[in-house]
Amino acid sequence: MSLTVVGSIAYDSVKTPFGERDRMLGGAATHFALAASFFDEVRVVGPVGDDFDDASWEVLRTRGIVTDDVEQVAGGKTFFWKGEYHDNVNSRETLVTELNVFEHFEPKLSDASRACDVLFLANIQPDLQRRVREQCQGARFVAMDSMDLWINIAHSSLMQTIRSVDCVILNDEELELLTGKPTSAAAAREILSWGPTAVVAKQGKYGAALFTAEGVFALPAYPLEHVIDPTGAGDTFAGGFVGYIAAHPDEEVSHELLSRALAYGTAIASFNVEEFGTERVVRLTAEEIAARVERLQRMTAFSAGPLALRG
Amino acid sequence: MSLTVVGSIAYDSVKTPFGERDRMLGGAATHFALAASFFDEVRVVGPVGDDFDDASWEVLRTRGIVTDDVEQVAGGKTFFWKGEYHDNVNSRETLVTELNVFEHFEPKLSDASRACDVLFLANIQPDLQRRVREQCQGARFVAMDSMDLWINIAHSSLMQTIRSVDCVILNDEELELLTGKPTSAAAAREILSWGPTAVVAKQGKYGAALFTAEGVFALPAYPLEHVIDPTGAGDTFAGGFVGYIAAHPDEEVSHELLSRALAYGTAIASFNVEEFGTERVVRLTAEEIAARVERLQRMTAFSAGPLALRG
Repeated sequence: MSLTVVGSIAYDSVKTPFGERDRMLGGAATHFALAASFFDEVRVVGPVGDDFDDASWEVLRTRGIVTDDVEQVAGGKTFFWKGEYHDNVNSRETLVTELNVFEHFEPKLSDASRACDVLFLANIQPDLQRRVREQCQGARFVAMDSMDLWINIAHSSLMQTIRSVDCVILNDEELELLTGKPTSAAAAREILSWGPTAVVAKQGKYGAALFTAEGVFALPAYPLEHVIDPTGAGDTFAGGFVGYIAAHPDEEVSHELLSRALAYGTAIASFNVEEFGTERVVRLTAEEIAARVERLQRMTAFSAGPLALRG
Repeated sequence: MSLTVVGSIAYDSVKTPFGERDRMLGGAATHFALAASFFDEVRVVGPVGDDFDDASWEVLRTRGIVTDDVEQVAGGKTFFWKGEYHDNVNSRETLVTELNVFEHFEPKLSDASRACDVLFLANIQPDLQRRVREQCQGARFVAMDSMDLWINIAHSSLMQTIRSVDCVILNDEELELLTGKPTSAAAAREILSWGPTAVVAKQGKYGAALFTAEGVFALPAYPLEHVIDPTGAGDTFAGGFVGYIAAHPDEEVSHELLSRALAYGTAIASFNVEEFGTERVVRLTAEEIAARVERLQRMTAFSAGPLALRG
């Protein structure tokens, strides 16, 4: 089976209180693919420019990621983002966004990418997401991300895309903005009524929650003493989450499977923020992931025990 | 055994997007005591004024809360707070704070209050907290709260108080402000080196985390579709958490006991925010608490399962 992701491949210049990096490899599809590559063969669909160098191609091909559908646009420049984190990396400011080759991007999927079993639509313009979604009719599980920009300026297109997927992954604020509801639980219930069977609320350093018709599953983030660079954490989370589902082709995508998937996404995302960009995940091992999932399990387990409360 | 709490008893005027209440009963000691009264006999130490009415006394005596050490100051007025919540109750603005009888409060503890097994020092001036702490030499577990004000203007006194307790309960921002550390995990490690054996990070709508020498325990908040009034949620959480420990006099205060306690605190706090002030907790039942703790347990449980990751 295979997993296809469409989204940005980028160069990021990032400054945090703990250091800075100039033009390091980033982008939603990159972070997603690196995380998902622990679970399944991943095919990346997205454009890069002439400036996309050999070292970047090498990282993008970690653990067998297939880059046949990464289109190198002659005369074009790779998507570029520059940002700075303040206040203990809790807030970030975008300094530069250059769409470059992304401005006229038309996703072209090879037969192999179209034949994917699982599809992730990273945060790109919702019309483009839908065009990719329509090409992957056989996918048994399709998840998507989006952002405030599309909620605000392309709402009706975004709604069409949402109705065509199985799972919506957004942060709390985006869920509330999208639905006009006051909490992510209320927002999730609303989105579940539109068609998707699962909603994931990303809560940054606080963790994530899953909402399905069956109920709620929630996990705190893995508690880290030092966070160096949160860039790409959400996409790394999505890569672990969606990748886990792709790795279980014979299991129904149940609440229970999605819950396990969320734990793997949480674990891998916690590594991502420990260093800049892709630096940590690119040399991550399966053993480290398994150990962190186990720690997540232990640090959330409790026995309620028998207790006579005073009524 | 018994549990003593010292802290504010107040009238709160609160406006949220979902309604408003004028001069409803509130205050840290009130919310704490109501939650803790499900677990043990609670003695409240704090001042009120002539204006403290019969209905308030009645609420304050719910489930046998002992008010012998609630001092009614002749000619005085009860502490008053007025605030408004904005942006889906995620931010709040203080409009009025009248200390009133709290301005010259000197905690006077009866023999019974001094003989407590467990003590909670709610958020009051740290000199006062310490004077109470010193009167309760036999307490086997002492926990405390504080706030940014005391961190900023009474730092050295606050440090002395912290060194005299077993457990510090603060929100994330306060932990980071107090220690100058960038994350609550790093802040907790620092505070554990000062003397306390447990640190609890309150994360509001996201949950709470416990840090001890043994490790970390963390729980998301119970996901609610509607939050009506968050006032008192932190103290209600502390009441459930500390109350649970008070209810287990024969158990060592281990990481495991504290973890269970945190689950009960989380459960009771989730009821508190569903209505204004004390309205929900005052009519809460033991069965409802037990059911919510069980749901918390189910919504965080997952089996990692065997999985061959691609290395």
